[in-house]
Amino acid sequence: MAGAPYYAILHYVGHGFAGWQRQPVHRTVQAELEAALERLAGARVVVHAAGRTDAGVHALGQVASFTLPRDWQPSELERALRALTPNDIWIARAGRAPPGFHARRSAVARCYRYVIGCDPAASSPFRRPYEWAVGAPLAADRLRAAAAHLLGEHDFRGFAASGQLKPHYRCTVTVAEWTARDDCDGYIFTVEADRFLHNMVRFLVGTMVDIGRGRRPVEDMPTLLRAADNREASPPAPAHGLYLLNVRYSQLDEGSTL
Amino acid sequence: MAGAPYYAILHYVGHGFAGWQRQPVHRTVQAELEAALERLAGARVVVHAAGRTDAGVHALGQVASFTLPRDWQPSELERALRALTPNDIWIARAGRAPPGFHARRSAVARCYRYVIGCDPAASSPFRRPYEWAVGAPLAADRLRAAAAHLLGEHDFRGFAASGQLKPHYRCTVTVAEWTARDDCDGYIFTVEADRFLHNMVRFLVGTMVDIGRGRRPVEDMPTLLRAADNREASPPAPAHGLYLLNVRYSQLDEGSTL
Repeated sequence: MAGAPYYAILHYVGHGFAGWQRQPVHRTVQAELEAALERLAGARVVVHAAGRTDAGVHALGQVASFTLPRDWQPSELERALRALTPNDIWIARAGRAPPGFHARRSAVARCYRYVIGCDPAASSPFRRPYEWAVGAPLAADRLRAAAAHLLGEHDFRGFAASGQLKPHYRCTVTVAEWTARDDCDGYIFTVEADRFLHNMVRFLVGTMVDIGRGRRPVEDMPTLLRAADNREASPPAPAHGLYLLNVRYSQLDEGSTL
Repeated sequence: MAGAPYYAILHYVGHGFAGWQRQPVHRTVQAELEAALERLAGARVVVHAAGRTDAGVHALGQVASFTLPRDWQPSELERALRALTPNDIWIARAGRAPPGFHARRSAVARCYRYVIGCDPAASSPFRRPYEWAVGAPLAADRLRAAAAHLLGEHDFRGFAASGQLKPHYRCTVTVAEWTARDDCDGYIFTVEADRFLHNMVRFLVGTMVDIGRGRRPVEDMPTLLRAADNREASPPAPAHGLYLLNVRYSQLDEGSTL
């Protein structure tokens, strides 16, 4: 179908979704967004996302691209999409995309955040759905030493779900940073890379938390970066602490600012 | 049943409950807490709460009292209750109560908070369930002028659900304060009184917000404080912005600190 290319930047709360990708039975973000666009367009619309987030993973800057048969003013499209999407999805922005724009293929970097709470107050039901309450103190210097090993290009099969058939498993990590939270004694991990393998951030965080609490040595990081599979990694951190934060495009300034 | 008196201080997220009070079909906080206590005690336990919060109302310091047939160490009781209550309830503290303690009848003051978000970012699905996004600017001086009328003893039938048969409708308000939020251009209303009528905080906030956005004059407040019913009040503010913050007891220090 010929038509004009558009993009939308979405926030969503992960709990209510079986992830991004459309599925026959379960509720997904893609299906909700496509249903809203179908009502706008009067025809089936297929949406592509920068990152196909898993069940339970949140987004504060997912980018989706799609084609609409008629022309829409960005503000009009934004308002219409906000009105048609359910309460746990929010359209932060929508607008015209450059010719040939594709939310996944055009992306040059993705940034994820993982939120950790450590203190007992983190068990509060107001925080619990939005962070991983580890329940043990973590040593900041050990977390940071572990993360420093990630920078640069590595093969990340040691930190990824098994069974992913890809031409290669190399990712170039440009940011890997632990910062202490100011509202509790937890931490936030921020990681940016050109691409991520399936479950990669959760495997990385699971292992680094074990290092931070003294259960395994920092030196495990370089060892795991040479591993051919995830058998030596710690279990992946839970989905509900993970946020897709933003996506960068060389063609699109907007993606870089959210 | 003879037995020792205990109390628990609870936080809960309102969405998942048809309010505090036990009901035949819907999920309520009282029913969940009684089910947990029944498992501990091996017998039916009846729980009394300081404030019977409505469907959707949150709590950051609800107080419940109950009797247990055998003696429990406070820390042991806390741990057991935390393990037995669902994820959207959190037992902040539990312990022995003074003889004759009753969470509702012994309370000398209750404090509620109402959270308002105004900016478009308040539509974020991460904030939406926890505040009322009014979507219009509010004048702080008008909110504060309206709230100043509430201090002292008044008959609050003008700001309460109709059909409540009570010996009298007077409440003594000791705190009624609007503060600007520092994370967005919204506000927080804090109100403390010896007692509250049904829906009173929500009626008060609904009317003050209309005053704050210039839809009705500040002078409506003293007029409504002389009204015999709620027909002239603005519609009550939505439940999901309201929090039972804490309860004070002359017998119990703990209630005053949460």
